[in-house]
Amino acid sequence: MDVTIDNFEQILPEIKQKIEECTFCSIDCELTGITQYKNLNSFDTPRIRYEKIKNNDNNFLILQFGLCLFKYNEGDKSYETNAYNCYLFPRSVNCKYSRDLSFSCLNSSLEFLIEQNFDFNKVFKKGVSFVSKDQEEILRHKLELDLEERSIPKGTLYPSKKEFHQQIDTLMTEIDEFVQNENETRKEIKFTEFVVRIFIEKNIRQKYQKRLKYENKFLENKERLMTITKVDSLDIKSDLDDFEKEIGFSRLIWFLSQSQKLIIGHNMMTDVMQILRQFFTSPLPENFEDFKSMTNSLFPKILDTKYMASVPPLKELVTNTTLGDMDKILSKDPFPTIKIENDVYSVNDEKLHEAGYDAYLTGCCYARMMHYLESLKGSRSTFEEFYINRLYLMKSFDTIYIDLKNFQEEPKRDNVFYLEFPSSWETQDLYDLFSAYGPIFIGWINDRSAFVGLQNADNAKKAAGQLVGVSGREYKVYFYSTFINQKNKSALGEKKENGKNKQIDKRKRNKGGTNQGAETTSDESSELKKVKTEENGSVNIEKPFEQNADW
Amino acid sequence: MDVTIDNFEQILPEIKQKIEECTFCSIDCELTGITQYKNLNSFDTPRIRYEKIKNNDNNFLILQFGLCLFKYNEGDKSYETNAYNCYLFPRSVNCKYSRDLSFSCLNSSLEFLIEQNFDFNKVFKKGVSFVSKDQEEILRHKLELDLEERSIPKGTLYPSKKEFHQQIDTLMTEIDEFVQNENETRKEIKFTEFVVRIFIEKNIRQKYQKRLKYENKFLENKERLMTITKVDSLDIKSDLDDFEKEIGFSRLIWFLSQSQKLIIGHNMMTDVMQILRQFFTSPLPENFEDFKSMTNSLFPKILDTKYMASVPPLKELVTNTTLGDMDKILSKDPFPTIKIENDVYSVNDEKLHEAGYDAYLTGCCYARMMHYLESLKGSRSTFEEFYINRLYLMKSFDTIYIDLKNFQEEPKRDNVFYLEFPSSWETQDLYDLFSAYGPIFIGWINDRSAFVGLQNADNAKKAAGQLVGVSGREYKVYFYSTFINQKNKSALGEKKENGKNKQIDKRKRNKGGTNQGAETTSDESSELKKVKTEENGSVNIEKPFEQNADW
Repeated sequence: MDVTIDNFEQILPEIKQKIEECTFCSIDCELTGITQYKNLNSFDTPRIRYEKIKNNDNNFLILQFGLCLFKYNEGDKSYETNAYNCYLFPRSVNCKYSRDLSFSCLNSSLEFLIEQNFDFNKVFKKGVSFVSKDQEEILRHKLELDLEERSIPKGTLYPSKKEFHQQIDTLMTEIDEFVQNENETRKEIKFTEFVVRIFIEKNIRQKYQKRLKYENKFLENKERLMTITKVDSLDIKSDLDDFEKEIGFSRLIWFLSQSQKLIIGHNMMTDVMQILRQFFTSPLPENFEDFKSMTNSLFPKILDTKYMASVPPLKELVTNTTLGDMDKILSKDPFPTIKIENDVYSVNDEKLHEAGYDAYLTGCCYARMMHYLESLKGSRSTFEEFYINRLYLMKSFDTIYIDLKNFQEEPKRDNVFYLEFPSSWETQDLYDLFSAYGPIFIGWINDRSAFVGLQNADNAKKAAGQLVGVSGREYKVYFYSTFINQKNKSALGEKKENGKNKQIDKRKRNKGGTNQGAETTSDESSELKKVKTEENGSVNIEKPFEQNADW
Repeated sequence: MDVTIDNFEQILPEIKQKIEECTFCSIDCELTGITQYKNLNSFDTPRIRYEKIKNNDNNFLILQFGLCLFKYNEGDKSYETNAYNCYLFPRSVNCKYSRDLSFSCLNSSLEFLIEQNFDFNKVFKKGVSFVSKDQEEILRHKLELDLEERSIPKGTLYPSKKEFHQQIDTLMTEIDEFVQNENETRKEIKFTEFVVRIFIEKNIRQKYQKRLKYENKFLENKERLMTITKVDSLDIKSDLDDFEKEIGFSRLIWFLSQSQKLIIGHNMMTDVMQILRQFFTSPLPENFEDFKSMTNSLFPKILDTKYMASVPPLKELVTNTTLGDMDKILSKDPFPTIKIENDVYSVNDEKLHEAGYDAYLTGCCYARMMHYLESLKGSRSTFEEFYINRLYLMKSFDTIYIDLKNFQEEPKRDNVFYLEFPSSWETQDLYDLFSAYGPIFIGWINDRSAFVGLQNADNAKKAAGQLVGVSGREYKVYFYSTFINQKNKSALGEKKENGKNKQIDKRKRNKGGTNQGAETTSDESSELKKVKTEENGSVNIEKPFEQNADW
């Protein structure tokens, strides 16, 4: 079901009830942009990956949020599902509390969405508004101050010239009586001086805010006529209602968070980061561990189906983990069919990349994989425990998930090397260089440097002996650990330097990630000297361990 | 006529020809966002206004460019018009040269456009690509290097093991012969070693780039079969064509610039700045005078109809200068009707805010005003000379235009004061304070400071005597000149400080604009002491000189 400003307020109580009743829920987000992969690297550690995505300057938005609620019926082993495809847009027109907001779009992301028939006209016209929890607190404080201010009785305001004070008092008394008399809806008062008009208006605004409306006109005898009418709808209750309306979709997300339900997503790292930023706090925590504990406290049970399908025992069966292909694989033997009572999307609905449909597919994939595992052995909760709170890390050489709950050691990577070479080098040149050591995995940093990981760690020692520290070649090969130590040293050096602003630090860090690692420290130089050079062997890479096509 | 990727290439020659033949052309742009007015001030000088809009962090885009070409027929005193409503989008998918581009949107601007039925789906799907002149130069340089690189004969590449060299030479000779034989389109070669495959592919890529395609498969006898086919379409000419296509809409803008035609716009300052940024150079010049001379050299004849209607003699007749209302006023007496041969938009087409229609209306308004002026006296060229190269400055207290051609003195503003007051103050409090000095004009800086200008400059001396430098009140009033001197001093101080980055400078400057002006210098203190205090007089502002509703 599409959720827009036309039905959100009506449908919200129903969604909340379905959340409370559900066994699990699945989500999916469509964004105006994502961190471009060229800025990421297969050898990013979880922390580095988080920092890269977080520090991406772009201020993207979720424009469509898919939520699918699955309720398992033990009796007939079936699911009742409800899918909501929610259009989101930060509204400003006719909003009392919300404000102008600028956001970023990436051309390629919009091109991708429009190719999938995403309806931008609908989202800009009918998207439900939202605010982050941070903003809501500021706005609510303002609202409370405003309401409090109104409840304090205030003295009448007068101009400096005393001759008008009596007249203003008389007129204000008339207006007070008019307000108190429920039978009257319209009041006319007369006076001649402009200053009286100004101060009557001032006093009305101070005392009755928008509950009274006034209009002025000149009469023929040069008298002024002010017509005052009551505006019933704009009372305090309505202000509170308006406020809740402007908080909009965030109320649903916050309810979902409080529900502590199991939340399923597919390849959900970017979605989770954007949900935190858009509906809770911006900017995201500087520290990676803070991000993990924040995510864990807001959503204590998250499960990523891409991670689930990428580790044994399902890894061997699910040979392609893009959502659409994975769904096709899981629809066949040996995976059990699942019974859906009310199939919200028909099988032939080719709505891939509509958030509601993707959320629905994700939930179905989860259910099929879980029922399959149950059929093998053990209980659902044991499996969940194994998969839960691990976010899949795309295109990663070794660490394929972020553990939201537990501390993760940085990978050692004895089988990884850092290389520098002329900018004319291509992938094939790296294959050639490492041809004697079995399949390799390449993580390009830029056109002059890259990480190279050996699939067969047993070959690392031989490769190190023949390549690391060899001089007089157009390339230089270093141990991964040498690179990291050097990088940490420069980072530490930067932290010690005070009085520089973040912008500068960031630029330096980026540079540190590419060039500075090249300079070997004195600790390393002895190690480098020990290495013996040897002529490269013949090319024998049959199946290079290339980057997975589905990433 | 709507212009999209479906018809741009076909229609471009026609548009170019119409530009060459036209008497004048009118333009209009629809953007993803504009500088929010809360950041601007009625007392901004032309230079300050330029800097504020330029320094706006947001990276907005023109998504729709309206171009209307008016050709005057002296014989029957009629216009032939051609309106082009062009959809623009920086494409990246299937583009060889273009790249990912992130841009900003302002929620309120998108809400405004969608309310006018702007079709975002169409613009994202069918928008014509563009690049700035800066980018085009970089890309063209790359393309030229690439083409040059291809024309240099290169030696065959070999693996380190010498045993395969002979075989590679033989196979490459076969391939060279295949390429030279025009009758052959497909070639099969056989070998067994993987290293041979790798080096044949490498040599093909180096020598023939994408003009050859290859596929490999294993034969039963463990031999490998490589099938090579010719890809005719991807020759150098096609690369150049692709390049021109990706330059896209910019070619039209550059042609318009070179045509040196008279270009009419309505309230066109933001449009002009964005055109320069999007199609020529980004960021815009730091220096205001550089911006003026750049604009003048790119578009030597610009005319702003909002400026034209806002100065005598038309000012008295055109009481509302928003485009739609102005068009209605100019359609009646005393303005002459103009004869349009081929009315591209019918009168009842309520397409206001579609760029093509707005451009058409703007051109019609210009023609009616110009013919009216001609009917009064003098020649068209005399009038044009008076209005030309002056961009209307919105919501400005005194300087209502930017003179693109001539140096403008900074306004003196003896009748303007800078005020500081408690944040509880409202507009009315300022009216009250200045009630004795006739109508005032207020330019809020923030909730604690503002500029106040007296409509009647004769009252400035009296106001200064009674308000400037008065102590012991909740407000403080300063001469405008005091504020500016103080601001210039802090700006100068900043320039002297080295080693700080721009970000910091900018923040300081902003603060200088609000608070630092409050601190009086020793030069001023004597002046302040001389001022005599006096009790405020009665309120007698009948018609406050309020901010114009149409801004």
